[in-house]
Amino acid sequence: MAKVLKELTPRSEDFSQWYQDLVIKADMAENSAVRGCMVIKPYGYAIWEKMQRQLDDMFKETGHMNAYFPLFIPKSYLSKEAEHVEGFAKECAVVTHYRLKNDPNGGGVIVDPAAKLEEELVVRPTSETIIWSTYKNWIQSYRDLPLLINQWANVVRWEMRTRLFLRTTEFLWQEGHTAHATKEEAIEETEQMINVYSDFAEQYMAMPVIKGFKSASERFAGAIDTYTIEALMQDGKALQSGTSHFLGQNFAKAFDVQFSDQNGQREYVWATSWGVSTRLIGALIMTHSDDNGLVLPPKLAPYQVVIVPIYKNKEQLDLINEKVADITKKLKALGVSVKYDKSDNKKPGWKFAEYELKGVPVRLAIGARDLESNTIEVARRDTLTKETVSTDGIEEYIKNLLDEIQDNIYKKAFDFRASQTREVDSYDDFKVEIEKGGFLLCHWDGTPETEEQIKNDTKATIRCIPLDGDKTPGVCMVSGKPSTQRVVFARSY
Amino acid sequence: MAKVLKELTPRSEDFSQWYQDLVIKADMAENSAVRGCMVIKPYGYAIWEKMQRQLDDMFKETGHMNAYFPLFIPKSYLSKEAEHVEGFAKECAVVTHYRLKNDPNGGGVIVDPAAKLEEELVVRPTSETIIWSTYKNWIQSYRDLPLLINQWANVVRWEMRTRLFLRTTEFLWQEGHTAHATKEEAIEETEQMINVYSDFAEQYMAMPVIKGFKSASERFAGAIDTYTIEALMQDGKALQSGTSHFLGQNFAKAFDVQFSDQNGQREYVWATSWGVSTRLIGALIMTHSDDNGLVLPPKLAPYQVVIVPIYKNKEQLDLINEKVADITKKLKALGVSVKYDKSDNKKPGWKFAEYELKGVPVRLAIGARDLESNTIEVARRDTLTKETVSTDGIEEYIKNLLDEIQDNIYKKAFDFRASQTREVDSYDDFKVEIEKGGFLLCHWDGTPETEEQIKNDTKATIRCIPLDGDKTPGVCMVSGKPSTQRVVFARSY
Repeated sequence: MAKVLKELTPRSEDFSQWYQDLVIKADMAENSAVRGCMVIKPYGYAIWEKMQRQLDDMFKETGHMNAYFPLFIPKSYLSKEAEHVEGFAKECAVVTHYRLKNDPNGGGVIVDPAAKLEEELVVRPTSETIIWSTYKNWIQSYRDLPLLINQWANVVRWEMRTRLFLRTTEFLWQEGHTAHATKEEAIEETEQMINVYSDFAEQYMAMPVIKGFKSASERFAGAIDTYTIEALMQDGKALQSGTSHFLGQNFAKAFDVQFSDQNGQREYVWATSWGVSTRLIGALIMTHSDDNGLVLPPKLAPYQVVIVPIYKNKEQLDLINEKVADITKKLKALGVSVKYDKSDNKKPGWKFAEYELKGVPVRLAIGARDLESNTIEVARRDTLTKETVSTDGIEEYIKNLLDEIQDNIYKKAFDFRASQTREVDSYDDFKVEIEKGGFLLCHWDGTPETEEQIKNDTKATIRCIPLDGDKTPGVCMVSGKPSTQRVVFARSY
Repeated sequence: MAKVLKELTPRSEDFSQWYQDLVIKADMAENSAVRGCMVIKPYGYAIWEKMQRQLDDMFKETGHMNAYFPLFIPKSYLSKEAEHVEGFAKECAVVTHYRLKNDPNGGGVIVDPAAKLEEELVVRPTSETIIWSTYKNWIQSYRDLPLLINQWANVVRWEMRTRLFLRTTEFLWQEGHTAHATKEEAIEETEQMINVYSDFAEQYMAMPVIKGFKSASERFAGAIDTYTIEALMQDGKALQSGTSHFLGQNFAKAFDVQFSDQNGQREYVWATSWGVSTRLIGALIMTHSDDNGLVLPPKLAPYQVVIVPIYKNKEQLDLINEKVADITKKLKALGVSVKYDKSDNKKPGWKFAEYELKGVPVRLAIGARDLESNTIEVARRDTLTKETVSTDGIEEYIKNLLDEIQDNIYKKAFDFRASQTREVDSYDDFKVEIEKGGFLLCHWDGTPETEEQIKNDTKATIRCIPLDGDKTPGVCMVSGKPSTQRVVFARSY
């Protein structure tokens, strides 16, 4: 049992190494042979599927439909929106040729120089440009609006320093792209979607987040306003977990997308875009997991319950199998997902450690004596506590326990964040406090110069200008100039 | 009403133009600004989502898990399997650089020559090579086998002539990649998956298929055997609709993937791969649709029932809305998906034509007189027939009707195929018959030379060597040499 666990670096020793160890050992993902690209292994992908399914339902409930746009973007499209190209041209994969051929000098295949593209194609880093070039043909009149579309896709950003899930060259995400007749409606949509993300983070990932605006320097390239949800990881660093952008008429103007309003006037369309990615899996891990392995919220765990039989011989196993079949059936009827691991080449202790590492919310163990006494051992992953309970009504018991675990890990994360969030009023204090990590609520004069100075001095950035909470004005901790409200500073991923 | 329909070229006039018209006008997909890449529009994508959901359930029921592997494949990997590189190097997108920069001479962005990759990356045309390079680290012992993994992904093959859904440069698909300890088990898996595809085609797409082997010249590049399902389109041409490959130990040897068997012996692993793609949407359209538009099988229709109100004033509409809410609730309780179109800027006649074009299996129309008589008009898309029925128990009636439509369109396609399938024994007859289209069952001597001659003479290829059916030996219609069984010839997409 101890062997597996020992190999996980404790968080207190090296948080970053703990994360890396855990992602690998819990079979979530690994680095591939292609620089910066990961392989998402079945256990990690199963969590992504649960996230997708839930988010997709939430998108559809709010009126969106899925579609699919090309992977490739003509180079010239990227340049059409001035800020956008600045943000994305620097880190993209460029397709220049469309054929390989046998090397005439032997030695495998080489790029065929005769197959050079007239215009290079960029592998999409995000799809605003290709989508707005398409919307131009879809939108003629106010009757075609709003256009509410989402895409599930892979995107590529050529990152220099990568980390599994948190920052990879290729990642999976969804990107919503909507078109509206009025500014007000587009802003409403932007806000609706940041609320969807926040609900998803809190209710499904059990991860508390702060909703707010990004400062101008941290905005999406091409946006008028970027809304963000910011979460706090256990090492005191912030993680941007989802963004929703009000794009104004920037892309409509860049791609000349106009519509006739009800009076027959031609107007430019208003736009939003919004996305979350496989980065959320990294956020999930760093929010809840511990030195024994993953801790998964029941609502996103690939399986919520694992059952391990403890037996000395085949007769005992047969009897246990029968009992387990009955329990499994009842649990499944209540919508609880169950894995029964009766593999005989691994000892129960090994299995216990394995499922602890994998973060299965509830582990049931059942042996010959339990059969006699009509009991079962129930172990909670979140608290690492065990108790022996009656198997009568066990399915209701487990169902309630899963809800309790979901609530408990949210509360734990919420309390952690509360303990790591504090108001700081002087820049000297700030420099001391930022070393301890956490969210610092400070007054800022609203200028990019002050923001830049703070970043250079301390590596802290403005995570967001919160939508909710204290709006009392004050004075900037650096410049002494007026501040309209406290903003959230932190070091971040 | 007639306006929309008139714009659809009749099948008898130009089948290919009919298909193109229909895909565009039914809002399924369109060509993008990027050569050969399509935009899948929400209505088309909704069908793909239904296909995905069903196939994914079938894959999971047969023990497979999803995972995700990188989009990019190092150029050298493609070369590791000799036949594979011959098959795929000729038509791939090659990434050579990872950055754009501002053109110092003005004029947008250019490829940054300083950002040239040491080794070029190929955008995956299929993932055997990147996956087997990964499996090498996952497989040590017989305990790690079988490895049963599927991936939902986009792939790119640089096709010169493209057609929406049927052949596009980028397409969406799933690719299963499994690893086994024995040859027998791998062959069993290959067969299991072609059966899954065949069940899906027949039971969900209502599309009859012939299961069989590909001849050597039509095999997947790197396979020992390729199993296929072949469907017959309404123009008499065949469409390869799904393939399952027994890869032997070819990729295991190319990537040195060995395992220790139960006796501690090192052995190469046995492999399969299998896939279906968005091409299935093209197959669906060309199997069932007619000159009035799409005909969709109820099991894959984005919505199965559309309800259109017919009213003269708001009072009537209010009463109809109430009735429709009641009917919709009952239908949804039975798992029937419903769209209620009460938009007031379109006339009922326009809506009827629109939903006919979109292939909605059942259309309900309800007016003021229906309210009085407690009736509703039910129109079937497959037969274009209408009848007025009581709204008492309408939900059961519709549910049964949907099943009947699903069966009916399968039967229609089955009968069509039967009428287009015939045995041909002389090559002279063959040359006449092939011009009429359909499946020709003929004796062939099993040599690639004869196959090639037939292809050059008639443009017909061997679609498959059927698994089921008549296995009587005979003599080759071309060479007169012995033949073990009749094979299926056709012209194809």
